[in-house]
Amino acid sequence: MSKFENVTVLKEANIYYDGKVTSRTVEFSDGSIKSLGIMLPGEYTFNTADKEIMEMMSGELDIKLPGEEWKTLHTPETFEVPANTSFDLKIKTVTDYCCSYVK
Amino acid sequence: MSKFENVTVLKEANIYYDGKVTSRTVEFSDGSIKSLGIMLPGEYTFNTADKEIMEMMSGELDIKLPGEEWKTLHTPETFEVPANTSFDLKIKTVTDYCCSYVK
Repeated sequence: MSKFENVTVLKEANIYYDGKVTSRTVEFSDGSIKSLGIMLPGEYTFNTADKEIMEMMSGELDIKLPGEEWKTLHTPETFEVPANTSFDLKIKTVTDYCCSYVK
Repeated sequence: MSKFENVTVLKEANIYYDGKVTSRTVEFSDGSIKSLGIMLPGEYTFNTADKEIMEMMSGELDIKLPGEEWKTLHTPETFEVPANTSFDLKIKTVTDYCCSYVK
């Protein structure tokens, strides 16, 4: 079981899609931020501000990035979404993820 | 937005009831542990090991403790569950919680 040490965690959750997607924000001493989240089966669209690196810790999903075909990803794959980009997800099984935000 | 500082967070989520209840474990420097979790609407039964103090940060639920009647709790109420106790919950709206484990 991997851990993040010496971090700050925001108590309140980030809640999307009526709780089917939720996450906790983790702040690191170097100023960087990650979110640890859960996505339940369903179809979602998200919009990035910063570039995002999504590490899958459990689950299977399909993703559609602009200008690309749908593709299926399995844990422990990682995917990247550019900054200021809208992307679509079809979550096939409960997905536990760690999202890193790249300035 | 309240925070927990200088803590350790376990990366992988605790996942129950097909993802309808999930949480993250937070370890404190004094050795104590809390979990930050989400419960989606539904009916659940849980069993404590240690005594638990559940702080509601959002949501509404009904709870049935052994030997007691069902009662409704609203954020920001807190409820306690003794150690080694089975208890029932009816989550009425998405509930964001912080659970403290008391040795």
